[in-house]
Amino acid sequence: MSKPETMKAYCFSEIGKIDLIDVEKPKILKPTDVIGKVLKATICGTDLHIVDGHMEFITVAARKRPGRGLALGHEAIVEVIEVGSAVEKFKVGDVAIASCVSSCGHCFYCQKNIQAHCINSEGLLGCYLGAEIDGFHAEYTRIPFADHSIFKVPKDQPLEPLLLLSDILPTSYEVGVKGKVQEGDNVAVIGLGPVGLCILMTLRLFKPSQVIAIDLDERRLELAKKLGATTTINPKKEDVMKKILELTTQEGKKPGVDVAIEAVGTSQTFLTCQDIVCPGGKIANVGVHGGPAPLNLQDLWAKNVDISTGLVSGYSTEELLDEIVKGKIDPSPLITHHFKLSEIEKAYDVFRNAGETGCIKVCITPDDE
Amino acid sequence: MSKPETMKAYCFSEIGKIDLIDVEKPKILKPTDVIGKVLKATICGTDLHIVDGHMEFITVAARKRPGRGLALGHEAIVEVIEVGSAVEKFKVGDVAIASCVSSCGHCFYCQKNIQAHCINSEGLLGCYLGAEIDGFHAEYTRIPFADHSIFKVPKDQPLEPLLLLSDILPTSYEVGVKGKVQEGDNVAVIGLGPVGLCILMTLRLFKPSQVIAIDLDERRLELAKKLGATTTINPKKEDVMKKILELTTQEGKKPGVDVAIEAVGTSQTFLTCQDIVCPGGKIANVGVHGGPAPLNLQDLWAKNVDISTGLVSGYSTEELLDEIVKGKIDPSPLITHHFKLSEIEKAYDVFRNAGETGCIKVCITPDDE
Repeated sequence: MSKPETMKAYCFSEIGKIDLIDVEKPKILKPTDVIGKVLKATICGTDLHIVDGHMEFITVAARKRPGRGLALGHEAIVEVIEVGSAVEKFKVGDVAIASCVSSCGHCFYCQKNIQAHCINSEGLLGCYLGAEIDGFHAEYTRIPFADHSIFKVPKDQPLEPLLLLSDILPTSYEVGVKGKVQEGDNVAVIGLGPVGLCILMTLRLFKPSQVIAIDLDERRLELAKKLGATTTINPKKEDVMKKILELTTQEGKKPGVDVAIEAVGTSQTFLTCQDIVCPGGKIANVGVHGGPAPLNLQDLWAKNVDISTGLVSGYSTEELLDEIVKGKIDPSPLITHHFKLSEIEKAYDVFRNAGETGCIKVCITPDDE
Repeated sequence: MSKPETMKAYCFSEIGKIDLIDVEKPKILKPTDVIGKVLKATICGTDLHIVDGHMEFITVAARKRPGRGLALGHEAIVEVIEVGSAVEKFKVGDVAIASCVSSCGHCFYCQKNIQAHCINSEGLLGCYLGAEIDGFHAEYTRIPFADHSIFKVPKDQPLEPLLLLSDILPTSYEVGVKGKVQEGDNVAVIGLGPVGLCILMTLRLFKPSQVIAIDLDERRLELAKKLGATTTINPKKEDVMKKILELTTQEGKKPGVDVAIEAVGTSQTFLTCQDIVCPGGKIANVGVHGGPAPLNLQDLWAKNVDISTGLVSGYSTEELLDEIVKGKIDPSPLITHHFKLSEIEKAYDVFRNAGETGCIKVCITPDDE
């Protein structure tokens, strides 16, 4: 028997422990799989949460593979290098955006565009690559249900900006913006992490009247202005409620924003959304929360407010790709740092310490590129 | 100067104090007003909350009229006896359903069918008759914005069942059902007070697959079956979560109800909704809450759940009237007790002690009828 081929992969094996190690190269396991060579990958806040042990069931999954663990990463551009027998849309050599959601395309949830809850999926919450199955912080990855989970890149399109289509652009759009924001609305975005900044980019598609960006970091507030925020508020310097009242008081309409988008994941910011939303308005929760938040139903019951939560489904990936190709969305300013796969430990450090490094998103490329 | 004409009105003047007294008869104050003779009126849970002082701003409003107070009641069928000069749709002698919401019909909110927040309204939360202005527990009432706030009763239609169109039928429909429930859905209704029972009646219009009614009162659970519940659960006797799992487990779909409708107004029942709703499902809050409820965002953020709150706007009154005329909805079983206006104190007692009296809704008629 010949020795199995190996590759480099950045594997999470125990809380706080993640190492670039040699592991077996992935193989086609199901006829709907493809094997992708990772051309570009990036890191998500969720990856840090996993390393820190905040997602217990993933810690448990990693421990089930002793001495090996789980390669993280759910955002990548890949080159298809091997194709399962049932794959119809892809051939070897195709370059594709890999969605963080791998979905069968046929079940009740896929038919309803809630692929996040695909009943046949293999990973986290029924979906995420890089969580319960190996992810993209590696040289190669097996991608399930390729026909519904990866999206072909048009010829000559620069790859790097497309990295944001794996997760945070569709997350922003599907969970925060689409079906929530209408032309002429006053919108507040609370939290300008990578997802909050993507919300600003996708908001434009709906022509809101005012876009109020709220964050504690001055650098991100500056960037927010470039991405379309009409006003920025730093709660360390200004009273948010007072400022919102100033900005939204108008004849014939009660003050408050029509849509408040939460992109932090804390009780406090979720409460701010409840305070600033106007009667008949919407709160879109995009942030990932670690615990319950109080819902002020004593005020809200009579306020005709809708609150939505959601995990990205990726159904909008091609629509957003089209907007990038047309130049309506340009995610380039969000990719601030570059690393080779061999430098991935440093990439994690720089991304984790974003407050000091100014990092928004990293781009990781193979060493041989 | 002649002595002003007087009438009987049941006036709330101080917490716990409400009396049938002689007050001045109402007059047209604005050209869009009508004066209605109250032909039928009923009592709402909100009236009891007002008497108990749970709505502080109404207590304050009542105290501003010393020795007089405020006539309560926001649900009635009226005969138009005087018409303001700008009223176009009504003439003296017309019989009409009075909506609990009085709305101008022209402002931003009225145009969006959120009349509950009409910017020009005169009463509670911008709307309720019987709260900040005199209501229907009286012989006569002034009704603002009549063209948009009362609805003509078709000839020969029995009046009593139409009483529920003032508030609780549209509340149930607009806040709990419409835009939430789709054909084939599994739906749970938590709380079978008068509003919960109306939810059961309006649910039918959307042909849900299962209707699971949850309450502690066996009599109401029995009535729920007659109104269309396919299963009833008494949490004193059965584990709600276990039963819901049993009822909703099916091939290819995650268990839980598609729509959970809260019609009680407590943290506990709102938490139950969060537990039993399936991924991609909806929670409709109809209950009136006195304080915050915990929202389990640590679970919900990834569950693609929509939560809606709302105060009735009355935009569906004519649609529901049409369903009653066609015999698709029959609210008659909900009116269990009858009183004359002179017996209104007893009517309040019987309604308040519904657990013992079995009262659902009362019907109050004038003494001269």
